[in-house]
Amino acid sequence: MVNKFFDLLIGRPLANEQSSREKYNVPFGLAIMASDAISSVAYASQEILLVLVPAIGLLSYKWLGNISLMIIGLLFILTVSYVQIIKAYPQGGGAYVVAKENLGIKPGLVAGAALLLDYILTVAVSSSSGVAAITSAFPVLVPHKVLLAVVLIAILTILNLRGVSESAKVFSVPTYLFIFSMIFMIIFGLVKYAIYGPSSSMQMIHQNLKPMGEISIFLILKAFSSGCSALTGLEAVSNSVPNFKEPGQKNATIVMVLLTFAILFIFGGSSLLARFYNAVPNPNVTVLAQIAYGVFSGKTFMFYVIQFTTAIILIMACNTSYTGFPMLMSVIARDGYAPRSFATKGKRLSFSNGILFLSIIAAILVVIFKADTDLLIPLYSVGVFLSFTLAQTGMVIHWNKTNEKGKNFRRAINGFGAFITLITTCVIVYEKFLLGAWVIILLVPIIVLGFLHIKKHYNYVARGLRADEDYVKNCGIGQSYNHLIIVPIASLNKATLGALKYARSITSDVIALNVSPNKEYMDKLKIKWEELNTDILLVSKYSPYRAIVTPLIEYIGVISHASSPDEKITVVLPQFITKDKSGQILHNHTSFLLRESLLRYDNIVVSTFPFHLNPGDDEE
Amino acid sequence: MVNKFFDLLIGRPLANEQSSREKYNVPFGLAIMASDAISSVAYASQEILLVLVPAIGLLSYKWLGNISLMIIGLLFILTVSYVQIIKAYPQGGGAYVVAKENLGIKPGLVAGAALLLDYILTVAVSSSSGVAAITSAFPVLVPHKVLLAVVLIAILTILNLRGVSESAKVFSVPTYLFIFSMIFMIIFGLVKYAIYGPSSSMQMIHQNLKPMGEISIFLILKAFSSGCSALTGLEAVSNSVPNFKEPGQKNATIVMVLLTFAILFIFGGSSLLARFYNAVPNPNVTVLAQIAYGVFSGKTFMFYVIQFTTAIILIMACNTSYTGFPMLMSVIARDGYAPRSFATKGKRLSFSNGILFLSIIAAILVVIFKADTDLLIPLYSVGVFLSFTLAQTGMVIHWNKTNEKGKNFRRAINGFGAFITLITTCVIVYEKFLLGAWVIILLVPIIVLGFLHIKKHYNYVARGLRADEDYVKNCGIGQSYNHLIIVPIASLNKATLGALKYARSITSDVIALNVSPNKEYMDKLKIKWEELNTDILLVSKYSPYRAIVTPLIEYIGVISHASSPDEKITVVLPQFITKDKSGQILHNHTSFLLRESLLRYDNIVVSTFPFHLNPGDDEE
Repeated sequence: MVNKFFDLLIGRPLANEQSSREKYNVPFGLAIMASDAISSVAYASQEILLVLVPAIGLLSYKWLGNISLMIIGLLFILTVSYVQIIKAYPQGGGAYVVAKENLGIKPGLVAGAALLLDYILTVAVSSSSGVAAITSAFPVLVPHKVLLAVVLIAILTILNLRGVSESAKVFSVPTYLFIFSMIFMIIFGLVKYAIYGPSSSMQMIHQNLKPMGEISIFLILKAFSSGCSALTGLEAVSNSVPNFKEPGQKNATIVMVLLTFAILFIFGGSSLLARFYNAVPNPNVTVLAQIAYGVFSGKTFMFYVIQFTTAIILIMACNTSYTGFPMLMSVIARDGYAPRSFATKGKRLSFSNGILFLSIIAAILVVIFKADTDLLIPLYSVGVFLSFTLAQTGMVIHWNKTNEKGKNFRRAINGFGAFITLITTCVIVYEKFLLGAWVIILLVPIIVLGFLHIKKHYNYVARGLRADEDYVKNCGIGQSYNHLIIVPIASLNKATLGALKYARSITSDVIALNVSPNKEYMDKLKIKWEELNTDILLVSKYSPYRAIVTPLIEYIGVISHASSPDEKITVVLPQFITKDKSGQILHNHTSFLLRESLLRYDNIVVSTFPFHLNPGDDEE
Repeated sequence: MVNKFFDLLIGRPLANEQSSREKYNVPFGLAIMASDAISSVAYASQEILLVLVPAIGLLSYKWLGNISLMIIGLLFILTVSYVQIIKAYPQGGGAYVVAKENLGIKPGLVAGAALLLDYILTVAVSSSSGVAAITSAFPVLVPHKVLLAVVLIAILTILNLRGVSESAKVFSVPTYLFIFSMIFMIIFGLVKYAIYGPSSSMQMIHQNLKPMGEISIFLILKAFSSGCSALTGLEAVSNSVPNFKEPGQKNATIVMVLLTFAILFIFGGSSLLARFYNAVPNPNVTVLAQIAYGVFSGKTFMFYVIQFTTAIILIMACNTSYTGFPMLMSVIARDGYAPRSFATKGKRLSFSNGILFLSIIAAILVVIFKADTDLLIPLYSVGVFLSFTLAQTGMVIHWNKTNEKGKNFRRAINGFGAFITLITTCVIVYEKFLLGAWVIILLVPIIVLGFLHIKKHYNYVARGLRADEDYVKNCGIGQSYNHLIIVPIASLNKATLGALKYARSITSDVIALNVSPNKEYMDKLKIKWEELNTDILLVSKYSPYRAIVTPLIEYIGVISHASSPDEKITVVLPQFITKDKSGQILHNHTSFLLRESLLRYDNIVVSTFPFHLNPGDDEE
């Protein structure tokens, strides 16, 4: 019944052979990958103006253009770089794989850890900001913010567990709605401006903006690093190449290029509109809303379309994480640096453990931070730019190793990209260190150490278990052991008798071991034992301190130490099984404790002999 | 190391033979048993006055005397009854055993459940009120009330786990301090009153107390039932007869009689003093404090001694529960109505499971009710009087069955006692129903049903396991089985090779079962298998839905159903053991799940073959 419920929720299991059905074609791939990147575009112009306007007033609009051009330049460098990464590393993993292959495993893990943290934060932040959009429409829901955000995460989890293609279908509609309404607004706004020029009301605002300071390198860098939030989400495609339908690399490249042009058009267009319509950063109305207000002449239908699709795309943004996180985690797990279960596909061919892990951690963050995004946002984008830097640096080394045509030019592009993203990373860390970026700086090495520890453990296990050809040939299957079987018993009942019979049928060396704190019971058992008329040896040990497990283990331990290598000791534990699972709690857990303790000895096999109580006896 | 820490905390284990050292002599027994009973005396006069004064003003002091006499009468009836119970039922268990033996098991369990609830409430209430006394002295601790109460419970737990004689030693000092300072105050107060007469300030208070109503049967009953709180704790001795040093019954009887006289003197004396010194109930100053103020002429040294010892005795009160609860629980468990582990003595010969259970439930109550006693107190004393009534009724039946001298007189006493305690129970339930007594009325039958369910389960298990003489003689130990062994393997490594070798040494019918979602791995295994050159059958099953456990169990299940009764199937699960326990979490839990699922089949024995990784491999 539980299984049926899950099947209903998540869908019927899919066989390995249905794998390709669960992959993206170009339109769905773009919808999934675009949501994170494009949603951050919605705020980038505003972030730049927020830095510039208080410092240099009217001059900001000129510099908004310059800085937007710089960011677009970086966008192209990153796109070229990631297209190369997709080509060079079709197995996915993006920055992690590039850094690992070219810079070594530790830089790779740093890039991986940074990206993973960013994915988790994306889910926590966008579910919280999505709920903020809902609660500002329906204030009665404000007290239930945390619950709503967790429910949102739960819905995303279920959709993603159903598999990538289904979640792509669900999420592609709002993404395209947003993209097309933004494109419409930009074209309409530019045409309108070309025909009518600036509106008079805007001129008035202009006059209030006196330049208060001068432009400086530092200010430019600060505005640039703030605007760089437009570029987060760009790396998602490169992490998820294997999620694309064949030809995977080609499809991923097309999506990457389309995504870049979408960002270019929406970011560039909205920066231009912000300048032409003179949007002023304002805590109550977003720059995007001001643009829409200006372009569509007030709170018209299209104004609301823009507002609505923006709110939706912010919620959708976390879905990119649901693609990136499990994929990256599976690549890291396949390399042995994360628990292997992250590399196994679930019933619906999605990396269900990664999806669940992402959801749980994000939900915990939402609960801890009470669905308040202000505390989470500064932790953001450090990770992305750290991984950009490492990926670009990795690509520089990559070009050194190859002999492809034009490698010098490409290396130069990546080198320049590495330099710019490094500076951006440093600026972001500097600006946001005390606001929370220190948490990331602290967590990344901790996670990397965890990865390394896991790898070390897997290596140790693999080395310990490895059986080479010689070992296999000489392992001596078919040789006989001298079997000694010990059956711990408390009394003679159907379960213990069954176990004794089983033991005696394997070997003639069987010891029935009775440890009791009650001498009277011990004597009773001895009398009953006579009736058995068997050659099994009954060993009775009195336990003055009432412990049962410890004396049993001590006795078995002594035998184990005295045994020869060709002797194998098996401890058979009689265990009765009741129909009703809840009944198990009433029976003493001696056999569970015994099992766990006995596995410490390396020449003792622990068997459980089940005795099923007749269900008919249950009725009185 | 953990063991050493516990030894330090709780003391070294004690052997069965040291049992008598852990029992009470008369003085320590009185100290343990008296704390609950005597601490309630501290409030009884106040409870009576609280009912009377608002209704009949000055007349209250006359009726305080009358009602106190009625309660003392009931005290004597209960004492006589409990002395008889101690004599008749030396194995302890008090009301539970008496009701069970004479009225049937269900009334017995009702009495038991009611008492157990009362014990739990006593611990929660007295730890909370003890903390209230501490925080009123040190208000800075008020925010930590709940923590302090839990710490107090933890300390009591440790002391009681150390064993009864040690906790008696610790707790006897404050109990005797309280008893002696109360006796001193009563004698001093009476002598002072005899010499000097009422003080003039008291006369003034007198004139303010106009009679506002008339005395009524109902008012008398209400005051009587409130005052009856003086009698709670009286039953503890009868529950704990086996805890006394030999001769147990005689020592218990002496303690019972001494306790009665202590209650008589302290309750009667403080009622008299309340009358002579005209204490008036007041939310800020307790009646006892007013008496002490009057007797010792203001806030003198002795005033503070009375205050201090009263506070201590209130905390100590819960220690009576720590004696009564585990003892009663062990008696019920020995009868099979509670989990058996409550009947086993711990390292220090105390019923450690009962002590821990009491502490945990009481601590949960403290946390839920935030260490606020107002909500817990009304739940109190319903249980005690319910058990009094059942015990007295049981004794009436008991006298019917015996032919002892004076049985008619004794039966009359118990009958009268049953009648009075029944009325008291009804009055308490009526007065406190909505304040919380309904919780007890609801919980008692639930607990009783739980007890009966447990008994039913134990009976079912015992019936199912019982092997009579015929069964033992004919169980056929020595007959042989056809052994078939199945070894689930994922690859050929040292652990699986070891398991295969072990299996092959028991029988020639061994199947190596490989379930894999990866055809490539399956083929690799087949090639490696050839090298083994063995007659063990390798069965490979492809799992398109990537599940491992389910196909394994299905396959084994099919074999299990097809097997004949003289065939025994053993599934050997290879399991590698790492030095470091935490590493286990990284390995898939297939073998754990398999074990649990396979035990469903009644002809499958599940063995774990341990392979210990060489610890030396751990270092890189």
